[in-house]
Amino acid sequence: MIKAGIMGATGYTGAELVRLLELHPEIETIFLDSRSYEGVRFDAIYPNLRSKVEDICRSINVDDVPEDTDIIFSALPHRVSQSKVLPLIKRGFRVIDFSADFRLREATIYEHWYETKHLDDRTLKKAVYGLPEWYADSIANAALVANPGCFPTSILLPLLPLLKEKRLHNKEIIIDSKTGVSGAGRSSSEVNIFSQVNENIKAYNIGKHRHTPEIEQELSLAAGSSVNILFTPHLIPIDRGILSTIVISAEGITRKDVETCYEAYYEKAPFIRILKEGYLPETKAVKGSNFCDIGFVIDSRSGKLVVVSAIDNLLKGSSSQAVQNMNVMFGLDERTGLDTAPIWP
Amino acid sequence: MIKAGIMGATGYTGAELVRLLELHPEIETIFLDSRSYEGVRFDAIYPNLRSKVEDICRSINVDDVPEDTDIIFSALPHRVSQSKVLPLIKRGFRVIDFSADFRLREATIYEHWYETKHLDDRTLKKAVYGLPEWYADSIANAALVANPGCFPTSILLPLLPLLKEKRLHNKEIIIDSKTGVSGAGRSSSEVNIFSQVNENIKAYNIGKHRHTPEIEQELSLAAGSSVNILFTPHLIPIDRGILSTIVISAEGITRKDVETCYEAYYEKAPFIRILKEGYLPETKAVKGSNFCDIGFVIDSRSGKLVVVSAIDNLLKGSSSQAVQNMNVMFGLDERTGLDTAPIWP
Amino acid sequence: MIKAGIMGATGYTGAELVRLLELHPEIETIFLDSRSYEGVRFDAIYPNLRSKVEDICRSINVDDVPEDTDIIFSALPHRVSQSKVLPLIKRGFRVIDFSADFRLREATIYEHWYETKHLDDRTLKKAVYGLPEWYADSIANAALVANPGCFPTSILLPLLPLLKEKRLHNKEIIIDSKTGVSGAGRSSSEVNIFSQVNENIKAYNIGKHRHTPEIEQELSLAAGSSVNILFTPHLIPIDRGILSTIVISAEGITRKDVETCYEAYYEKAPFIRILKEGYLPETKAVKGSNFCDIGFVIDSRSGKLVVVSAIDNLLKGSSSQAVQNMNVMFGLDERTGLDTAPIWP
Amino acid sequence: MIKAGIMGATGYTGAELVRLLELHPEIETIFLDSRSYEGVRFDAIYPNLRSKVEDICRSINVDDVPEDTDIIFSALPHRVSQSKVLPLIKRGFRVIDFSADFRLREATIYEHWYETKHLDDRTLKKAVYGLPEWYADSIANAALVANPGCFPTSILLPLLPLLKEKRLHNKEIIIDSKTGVSGAGRSSSEVNIFSQVNENIKAYNIGKHRHTPEIEQELSLAAGSSVNILFTPHLIPIDRGILSTIVISAEGITRKDVETCYEAYYEKAPFIRILKEGYLPETKAVKGSNFCDIGFVIDSRSGKLVVVSAIDNLLKGSSSQAVQNMNVMFGLDERTGLDTAPIWP
Repeated sequence: MIKAGIMGATGYTGAELVRLLELHPEIETIFLDSRSYEGVRFDAIYPNLRSKVEDICRSINVDDVPEDTDIIFSALPHRVSQSKVLPLIKRGFRVIDFSADFRLREATIYEHWYETKHLDDRTLKKAVYGLPEWYADSIANAALVANPGCFPTSILLPLLPLLKEKRLHNKEIIIDSKTGVSGAGRSSSEVNIFSQVNENIKAYNIGKHRHTPEIEQELSLAAGSSVNILFTPHLIPIDRGILSTIVISAEGITRKDVETCYEAYYEKAPFIRILKEGYLPETKAVKGSNFCDIGFVIDSRSGKLVVVSAIDNLLKGSSSQAVQNMNVMFGLDERTGLDTAPIWP
Repeated sequence: MIKAGIMGATGYTGAELVRLLELHPEIETIFLDSRSYEGVRFDAIYPNLRSKVEDICRSINVDDVPEDTDIIFSALPHRVSQSKVLPLIKRGFRVIDFSADFRLREATIYEHWYETKHLDDRTLKKAVYGLPEWYADSIANAALVANPGCFPTSILLPLLPLLKEKRLHNKEIIIDSKTGVSGAGRSSSEVNIFSQVNENIKAYNIGKHRHTPEIEQELSLAAGSSVNILFTPHLIPIDRGILSTIVISAEGITRKDVETCYEAYYEKAPFIRILKEGYLPETKAVKGSNFCDIGFVIDSRSGKLVVVSAIDNLLKGSSSQAVQNMNVMFGLDERTGLDTAPIWP
Repeated sequence: MIKAGIMGATGYTGAELVRLLELHPEIETIFLDSRSYEGVRFDAIYPNLRSKVEDICRSINVDDVPEDTDIIFSALPHRVSQSKVLPLIKRGFRVIDFSADFRLREATIYEHWYETKHLDDRTLKKAVYGLPEWYADSIANAALVANPGCFPTSILLPLLPLLKEKRLHNKEIIIDSKTGVSGAGRSSSEVNIFSQVNENIKAYNIGKHRHTPEIEQELSLAAGSSVNILFTPHLIPIDRGILSTIVISAEGITRKDVETCYEAYYEKAPFIRILKEGYLPETKAVKGSNFCDIGFVIDSRSGKLVVVSAIDNLLKGSSSQAVQNMNVMFGLDERTGLDTAPIWP
Repeated sequence: MIKAGIMGATGYTGAELVRLLELHPEIETIFLDSRSYEGVRFDAIYPNLRSKVEDICRSINVDDVPEDTDIIFSALPHRVSQSKVLPLIKRGFRVIDFSADFRLREATIYEHWYETKHLDDRTLKKAVYGLPEWYADSIANAALVANPGCFPTSILLPLLPLLKEKRLHNKEIIIDSKTGVSGAGRSSSEVNIFSQVNENIKAYNIGKHRHTPEIEQELSLAAGSSVNILFTPHLIPIDRGILSTIVISAEGITRKDVETCYEAYYEKAPFIRILKEGYLPETKAVKGSNFCDIGFVIDSRSGKLVVVSAIDNLLKGSSSQAVQNMNVMFGLDERTGLDTAPIWP
């Protein structure tokens, strides 16, 4: 059995990870770290896990992490996370980090967008961006995997194949994303009070959301040249799910081209579902799963290609993607522990 | 008192109109037409109106409409509506039509998008598009007012001033709209079943929504040249509200330019609220009212202007806009009966 | 114009009061007190009130309240409220208090349930319980009106007539209430985080909710003897609304009896709507209004009378009931400023 | 592999069954019957099952069911179901029926409440009520299992142990249940239109819901004497979940008594989770699972025991309970294919 520990286990992504590891046939979870819930039974915080996870949360120092831990997940917030992850890496552990601390390949860009210092540029350079459909080989051998952000996952998976194939005029990429409220986490703030967000929709952080540089970094790498996006996130009253509506020029592209391109890159990707003509993704169809659904329309009137993707922000957008990365790191079938089917409705 | 009659009173927009007219100080409603609910008390269908509207629905023939009716609202579906409205106009009544039957100035465009014959091109040409912030003078004297669609209202109000001022490169207008479920009406279908749309979001009719030609028609008129849009509607799990996120080139435009432009056109428009820098519209803030909130951001990284608008799809997007039109038609202050403040939350 | 001031204006009930007073034809609001939002424009907190309420929040000391203030509303939390209300009363102002501080006629019961000292038993004894359908005469002359709790309002309005008429065996009253999340206020806590309460229902505080003694006090007064209830509140994922389902013995009672009883007490009550046989209340039909809808069923199999009531917890359950009380205190028609009709849907 | 067929596969309970059987390690689904979707791919109706269930729906006649089918599930509506199930039983198949057609042991009671004829009293008498925590032995050998209703499951599981132990004065059982909208099925009707039920709660069918006789039948059997209940269902705006709040006399009962009683009956029941003092069930904690959570409070002021239970209406209230029954029928561990953990939030 692979021995796993979780730092910051009591946020929503941490708790989903706990649940997934509990169901995973090859994993034994050996500690659940939480500063705020030290000494509390995990299922007292997450009643869904009653009779499943009876562990007590402990506040774990980096030095106390047992030698024989095979993999450590850090679901701590950015800035805090690097302060824990760096010494763990130094001690020789393999780590999957959920925060933004190791996603941006340039420390200066990180420091600009996150307004905090990066503590170790050298380790940063060795971190692998954990999008397993694209970086499986590097992930397999990585000591440190930077698990992607939720919006970036929903945007990169549909865009990377197209940019890679140079099929697109990549000067103008307009992205309109909508996320469920769980993306704001479990700490209470005005942003996630029921009565403020229910029966409501709004845009926020237009052009300045912190996921912007992460998206642009990966798109630019795929395109082989600098790519700029306009990214507008919206908050909608659902628990989970991100729907991204992406508009790009369709000049010189046919439906068949796009289909062929997706087939080439994703034919063997078990969690990418390319929808047939006439169908469009909806978040409900991927809720509770590691799937990313992708559909598209070419609108001849405007000359645009509209690509729509749907993921579960806490799963493919975070925790199940981390498990998929772990599967790759340990040579398991990437579906292990993730091969479920979403409920409906 | 102005005597008003309503054809098709029992759909959601019809019922909101009934409510608004009941609260209106200058109106007496003299008939509520409904084929499906003939003989039923209105408040048995709409329990919100108990003790307010005790009328019985009647199925009214065009010939039976009383001579002294001052204004007739038709909240019938397109195609059916023109078959009732045309003889009413012929009999000399003034009519406000909620359907799409008289919104498109060219019968051929109507026939193409709505796949049905237009019955009277001459009357069509005399109809006035009922956006009172723009066409008040014509509305004042109109026999037939075509009440705008809900999406068009949310898109035209923020865009018309900009296009009118030639401030925009109007070749590329990308519109991403999100609507509440009441837009799908009160007739049951798979589209509006709770369990299918709750905890879900999806795009639909990309590039082929029937409101597209209506939006393009009015934008082209304002711009003085043909304008093409890409319009992507989404369905979100709220009762009411449309949020439109509109992306256009910001080349050569400053925040001040946009503010000045909006001020010039809307300074005296009581229902248009232009938001200050740092604020963005949300549908909850306009729910239950005739307001249209407009906010915007200029994103220097992408060189785009992002304008966001919020309306209540059943009110400014339909019934209260009709009342505003009626106020204009009868020389009343346009706020009469509409001067409320939305609840929160 | 009646001059009104509001202490604690920025909570949900405070803000709804601000909105109602803005729409009220006889009221001028002269100050909006808020400690946490001092110096902030009210419509920056409540965007629904843009263009309606442009006042700046101020932190008001009791001594600074202007002499010519006719009525002061305190929407402060219990314990804090009495510390402000008592000196205001001493200065001779008339006050409507939204908190529980003056609802319980016995200080000892207050102190037991609210675990805090009552500061002035004498003033407590002079306070009037602000249920205008029952205490209009005392309210008219009161210096201090204790505005009822939201659950008590939904329970007392249907039960008081029955208990008053001795029609009921009052030994067993089982009350199952369901409230929307706005009842938990606007301060963030785990209780009102969207993702914790959305797509969820739970019971809480069974048998120990603080509204219990308030309900029992008023029921006992009506019955002329001590009445005990079992009160089980539930939290449901809606913004607003309380539905109370009340079960009592139907021994010796017919439908006609209950109807006659309600008619006798509520025939002239403009905000109580008694539903006909075959209809049951729903919260949506009263949302945004001061209505209380009451319906009932006599179940012969179990020998029980089931009474169901629906109110808007922030309005008839708080702010609009306060305005109704104010109307009574100042000799206005009790409908003034409240004569609206709820929207649907 | 066990060969299973499903009659009426395209309703919500049918589709959840399809999903569960797809994930079940011992099952091969050999046909999906649907009259309305004949010839349609299952995942075109249920997009959650893309890449999982690619079968085509077929309209199956009873005579065409293959000989080697081991188990047939009927998710057809009542009345239709018996017309299919009876000939299947006659042909010697084992059947689990989701409808009410074989739940009531007396045909006359069925005929009274469901207003339709029962076609075969003899088969009815041999049917086993499929509550596996109570009737596992009979289920193991049954030819025909009547899968319980959703409300009954949520009510019987907490009540049966108490009634069995004669701990309760069973004269007065007051049950207030709340169900999500999926209980109304996937056929569109006014009852399940989003805008009618969202932001709303109402009671319905007070004292006359068709699940009443089913609940009373099983309670009476456990108590050894006739038990009468008052059952009040409510509709709340969530996709899934039933919360039942049950009030009974606590005369002579301590908390310890109830705990001991539950332990005695459910210690080895893997899907029943008895909550510790201070905790109460919530539907979100069981959503997507076969769990039934049970918590309770003894309220000394009113002398009542309040028991609260939570289930997922489509799973433990229908489809996963059916799979649990099937596991028992075929000698499998009852957890096979059901041993999941619910997501949160």
